[in-house]
Amino acid sequence: MLIAVDAVGGDHFPENPVLGAIEACKYNEDIQILLVGPEELIQEELNKHTTVHSRISVLNAPQIINMDEAPATAVKGKRQSSIVVGLSAQKEGLCEAFVSSGNTGALLAASTLILGKLEGVLRPTIAALFPTIKGFRLLIDAGANLELKPEYYFQFASMGTVYAREIMQIAQPTVGLLNVGDEEEKGTELLKESYLVLKKLSNFTGNIEGKDIFKARTDIFLCNGTLGNVLLKFGESIPDTLKVLLKMHFEKEKIPADLQNTIFRIVHETLQPFNYENVGGVPFLGVNGVSMVGHGNSSVTAIKNMILNAAKCIEQNVNDKIVASLN
Amino acid sequence: MLIAVDAVGGDHFPENPVLGAIEACKYNEDIQILLVGPEELIQEELNKHTTVHSRISVLNAPQIINMDEAPATAVKGKRQSSIVVGLSAQKEGLCEAFVSSGNTGALLAASTLILGKLEGVLRPTIAALFPTIKGFRLLIDAGANLELKPEYYFQFASMGTVYAREIMQIAQPTVGLLNVGDEEEKGTELLKESYLVLKKLSNFTGNIEGKDIFKARTDIFLCNGTLGNVLLKFGESIPDTLKVLLKMHFEKEKIPADLQNTIFRIVHETLQPFNYENVGGVPFLGVNGVSMVGHGNSSVTAIKNMILNAAKCIEQNVNDKIVASLN
Repeated sequence: MLIAVDAVGGDHFPENPVLGAIEACKYNEDIQILLVGPEELIQEELNKHTTVHSRISVLNAPQIINMDEAPATAVKGKRQSSIVVGLSAQKEGLCEAFVSSGNTGALLAASTLILGKLEGVLRPTIAALFPTIKGFRLLIDAGANLELKPEYYFQFASMGTVYAREIMQIAQPTVGLLNVGDEEEKGTELLKESYLVLKKLSNFTGNIEGKDIFKARTDIFLCNGTLGNVLLKFGESIPDTLKVLLKMHFEKEKIPADLQNTIFRIVHETLQPFNYENVGGVPFLGVNGVSMVGHGNSSVTAIKNMILNAAKCIEQNVNDKIVASLN
Repeated sequence: MLIAVDAVGGDHFPENPVLGAIEACKYNEDIQILLVGPEELIQEELNKHTTVHSRISVLNAPQIINMDEAPATAVKGKRQSSIVVGLSAQKEGLCEAFVSSGNTGALLAASTLILGKLEGVLRPTIAALFPTIKGFRLLIDAGANLELKPEYYFQFASMGTVYAREIMQIAQPTVGLLNVGDEEEKGTELLKESYLVLKKLSNFTGNIEGKDIFKARTDIFLCNGTLGNVLLKFGESIPDTLKVLLKMHFEKEKIPADLQNTIFRIVHETLQPFNYENVGGVPFLGVNGVSMVGHGNSSVTAIKNMILNAAKCIEQNVNDKIVASLN
């Protein structure tokens, strides 16, 4: 199972992608890695590690798409970038998956353009892992599709259900539609129409509200990309906000330094589920291949986990199951 | 200055509204209160308090609109409810404001229907107070208007600016548009068009993202009612979620009971700004009068603060300033 890894994606390259690849190889013996990026840069990083695995090879891609580049222009303009070269390698059958912690917009554009869509899929979507008191759950769409139609919601729910069941090990995932209230007649015309279409799914439990997310009242939270993106970034800001508020409170109340440190440590540990640096990437659902994106800040562990999740997608034939669920 | 108070709104009536009214009278000598609701029920509650103020009178309204009643039906069907009677009294010039911690939807419908709109206002809106590291800021719209137009965003920004400056004492309030990125070209067609219209406002600083809310990158966060409502309810769920996560962590790590209690207490105190029970109500901006709604859980302090804010709206001629800012 050959998985291509973007060696120059994210904020900490090439060290984190290269180390993540080494760790993934150690963990799963069926994995082989193709590191994609400027050959010399990768080789230099590989040379630092004495335990370099024989299952790791390099695919040269001299160009780098930066985190803040406009997606469409970057993908069109940089044909020799790690993203375009890595996804093209998958399209040509050279490897079975591509993972990156690079520019999400460019990855979505390139994945859709190069890999194409799965049979029957109207729009590929980004499904984000959202932390809850029951562990991670799926928020769909996380920013790929800003304007939805009822059929898009329906397909996102179906694709998310397969992913949650096969990769996240949630036995019977339930689906909720984010709305201003949980009664059927709530929301915009689009949300009301979508509710009626979603009712055809046996695992759709109805509308959910903002207060239902952290409780994981359902396993999949459906929303448009604007709402999903704002919620996701807002959620990510909670740990740092809490630290600032604690610090302000400590100063005001003159809390002893020892106790401050203890509280900071315990709150930090408690909020580890919210630490996106450790999350193992999210999938583009609906593309004809396996393409995953990690947070720009991805740690070595996050990249390792993303590679392992991509391997699981291949092993579990997630895409065949998605096509079957839609048709 | 006579302010009508819904004596049967919220989860703790008549005790909290009656006590809140007494406290507000003590705090501001210019305030007189008209308690609106079933006369006997109010009188019975008033009789419990030996220090009942001579500035408090009762307006009989035998019907009660429940928290979960459908707004339009409730307002049409219950003409003798505290909400309809209280707002009608304001319309007739008997009092200058109406405050309630009752059914928000019914209050919005009745306020718009009975008081009407201010000159030039396209749509009244609910502006919610959102906690940030700099204190409360304004989130508009919080659920009253689910489908917006660029001109609505523009008016919400103008009305919010007046409220933030006159009532929240923010000297030069800035306005941001919630979007998936902060570049001008981000978002749906509607958001791009709205950006162009908002640029006419000198205090519009551009798009903001979910991560900018808690930082209070701007003082006013503009969004549609669906996004606002989901964000608000999600934000409200943070303190309880944190308590559950801490509890789980304490059990897992076998943290001593003493330390557990200390941490719970300090985190609880730190999160007081998030405690909606203590927030003093939010205004319906754009209605031709003063109408404020508090959280169903409003404490006595919250209701006192809501009455004091309504008094400030009257004293500062907020509505005249809103009309001037729009025309």
